[in-house]
Amino acid sequence: MKRVSFDAMSCSIAQALEIIGEWWTPLIIRDVSLGLRRFEQIQGDLGISRNILTDRLNKLVEDGILYRTNIAASGTRCDYRLTEKGLDFLPVLMTLMAWGDKWVEQPDGPYTELVHTTCDHVTHPHLVCDHCGEAITPQTTRSRAGAAFAHDPHHPLVRAAAARA
Amino acid sequence: MKRVSFDAMSCSIAQALEIIGEWWTPLIIRDVSLGLRRFEQIQGDLGISRNILTDRLNKLVEDGILYRTNIAASGTRCDYRLTEKGLDFLPVLMTLMAWGDKWVEQPDGPYTELVHTTCDHVTHPHLVCDHCGEAITPQTTRSRAGAAFAHDPHHPLVRAAAARA
Repeated sequence: MKRVSFDAMSCSIAQALEIIGEWWTPLIIRDVSLGLRRFEQIQGDLGISRNILTDRLNKLVEDGILYRTNIAASGTRCDYRLTEKGLDFLPVLMTLMAWGDKWVEQPDGPYTELVHTTCDHVTHPHLVCDHCGEAITPQTTRSRAGAAFAHDPHHPLVRAAAARA
Repeated sequence: MKRVSFDAMSCSIAQALEIIGEWWTPLIIRDVSLGLRRFEQIQGDLGISRNILTDRLNKLVEDGILYRTNIAASGTRCDYRLTEKGLDFLPVLMTLMAWGDKWVEQPDGPYTELVHTTCDHVTHPHLVCDHCGEAITPQTTRSRAGAAFAHDPHHPLVRAAAARA
């Protein structure tokens, strides 16, 4: 299958997927966040081929999501850590995890639990508004085209409005 | 590249990716949520091949994320809508969008904005704990293996602990 680049789509979701949407990438970020920081550890955990993992790690470093540290004098070993941009991605994984916990059958219970250290309870994160602090749900949000794109005939919201008209 | 199935990985993130991780799928869900409900509309918006889109829509219906409605008597046209499971996925896209808004350069400003209808302001969702209501950040959370998996040598947290020991 030919992969089409999402670079040309201005949408933040499409552009985030351009960086992150690749099949293994979220699991590599998960592993590094859990403390698997060496190539061999991540490779052992995911069972991914060395070539693919090398590519993905290089891409994640290039995109500023991971950085290399504790590089051995020989240059052949290093640790991978999350940058601020990478740490900022973890809420996406937490939200994805909460969705999987709810909707994917797990006969033995959840594989991993998230503990909120502020209250020391297992937590299921949910979204609130940064303006009013109330819950954000699909029912209490609507999307609108950003000012620069409000009349762009390629914007999906402009297309959707045209389709309804 | 051979695609490995994540079915065997119990982790909710891996299992959610098994359903959602496919390159086009999040954008199809986005389009349907924005009101593009017909095959031709989604196809026109994404510029995706008809074969691939047919496959993805069938998979999303099979996985219970979309359903078909307003099916024409001829059986050749229908609308796609999000199920409850599909609506529940939108917070993942909102979180991904917020990350993209923050970290991907957008010289013309955001392509799409999210308006919180409760307070009628543009919103940037963030995560709070369902137990104590306080903010959830990478700094205030830790992951632990679920009870059934606490001693599973394949669990990444058990691997990470072994690597530190």
